[in-house]
Amino acid sequence: MAVAAGDLHVPLVRDGVEDRVAVEEPLEIRVGGAALAITMRTPGCDEELAVGFLAGEGLIGPGDDVAAGLTDDLAANTIEVSAVLRRDPGLRRFYTTSSCGVCGKGALAEVAAIAAPLPDGPRVERSLLAELPDRLRQPGFAATGGLHATGRFSAAGELLCVREDVGRHNAMDKVVGRAFLDGELPLHDSILCVSGRLSFELVQKAAAAGAPVLVGVGAPTSLAVAVAADRGLTLAGFARRGGVNVYAGEERLLAPRPRALD
Amino acid sequence: MAVAAGDLHVPLVRDGVEDRVAVEEPLEIRVGGAALAITMRTPGCDEELAVGFLAGEGLIGPGDDVAAGLTDDLAANTIEVSAVLRRDPGLRRFYTTSSCGVCGKGALAEVAAIAAPLPDGPRVERSLLAELPDRLRQPGFAATGGLHATGRFSAAGELLCVREDVGRHNAMDKVVGRAFLDGELPLHDSILCVSGRLSFELVQKAAAAGAPVLVGVGAPTSLAVAVAADRGLTLAGFARRGGVNVYAGEERLLAPRPRALD
Repeated sequence: MAVAAGDLHVPLVRDGVEDRVAVEEPLEIRVGGAALAITMRTPGCDEELAVGFLAGEGLIGPGDDVAAGLTDDLAANTIEVSAVLRRDPGLRRFYTTSSCGVCGKGALAEVAAIAAPLPDGPRVERSLLAELPDRLRQPGFAATGGLHATGRFSAAGELLCVREDVGRHNAMDKVVGRAFLDGELPLHDSILCVSGRLSFELVQKAAAAGAPVLVGVGAPTSLAVAVAADRGLTLAGFARRGGVNVYAGEERLLAPRPRALD
Repeated sequence: MAVAAGDLHVPLVRDGVEDRVAVEEPLEIRVGGAALAITMRTPGCDEELAVGFLAGEGLIGPGDDVAAGLTDDLAANTIEVSAVLRRDPGLRRFYTTSSCGVCGKGALAEVAAIAAPLPDGPRVERSLLAELPDRLRQPGFAATGGLHATGRFSAAGELLCVREDVGRHNAMDKVVGRAFLDGELPLHDSILCVSGRLSFELVQKAAAAGAPVLVGVGAPTSLAVAVAADRGLTLAGFARRGGVNVYAGEERLLAPRPRALD
């Protein structure tokens, strides 16, 4: 399993005892010298974060020639990405279409434009999805209670990569970015699992990365369910205590095994 | 107590049973006809959200002449704010200072520039802070498990306003925006309480609104603690099961009452 770098937490004296809090610092993502975005993140794996963010927005994709590195001048917390973007980020009218103004339908259309069709597989057991959160390794959360996690699993449930971050979106960007840098996108055989709730943006990122199954410990939103259904992505929430709710893409679930007659 | 409007959740049939999921839709915030921001939010109280967002960014402040309303043309989910902004939002180099590039120090300097000094009071009991999450009314969370909440309390612990939203920042923006529209900013006598974790941005919003005390059910980040200490804001986390951890601004805590001798 890929190992994350960087200090996830810092010591802090509180009420006379030493405590630990999750690190949060800004990161500016630059492409070709121009600032594209600033995100509040936990330092470490910043190349993954930058590349995963760009992939989730459909600005880069599998096979593109991409390099990323922290700048070494006075401007700390700045990462420079070298890539030919697939579209002008400034031309994107985020979530807006001419037909309906700003609405969820426009958001769905935007995801459809950047996410290639997902494969029919893999077929997975419902019980496996329910178990995945327990297989996430979250030492940073254990120390601070303040970090989100995303894990990438094989279809058989083996943990391939996990990242923790104060931002739930950043944790997924880092996992996707790692896969991108390793030439493993699209994630057609993978299951992504997040430690929290399932928002529209997390489903967008999973779909853009080609991951056909997304599982979360928490609740989905209405737009998360809508975009998962629209893209044919299997979306499962409330994965805890051995159970899981499936909101879209049930066709990838294996039927429960019939009990053996005895 | 102010009552929130709008449908917080929608029905959804899952596994043959009717479930409810939190509503998530985009909202475009315009000022003077120009798009300033898009946020994914739970519809309802959108005027509050827009005004609270602008106040949290230091773009408007107490006493400013501000009006907000949903546009009634085809562009749904768009809110138009009429206000003279205190600065050009385009001139702000978010989190960046010339001395140190992009860093937490720059973020602190930006909050200092938009947040007026906080009052010395109110003085509060530690036990009261620990109780506040239990006093938040969260019917939307009870129905869906997918909504964050922010509550505004008096210094005596009376709930004055509560808002729920899929975005934790939006819930606070709505509470601050309601107070702004009612002419109640700065919130010098109020305690803000959030249902989740304590990020830098939530502390920024509380400080910009003039709220001297911020309590959360979850963990704070390093930058949240730093900006609270820098601004003299009382920051308390892990408020649950009768306990609370205080990370900054302990001077507002009343000493525990000595036990009566018997």
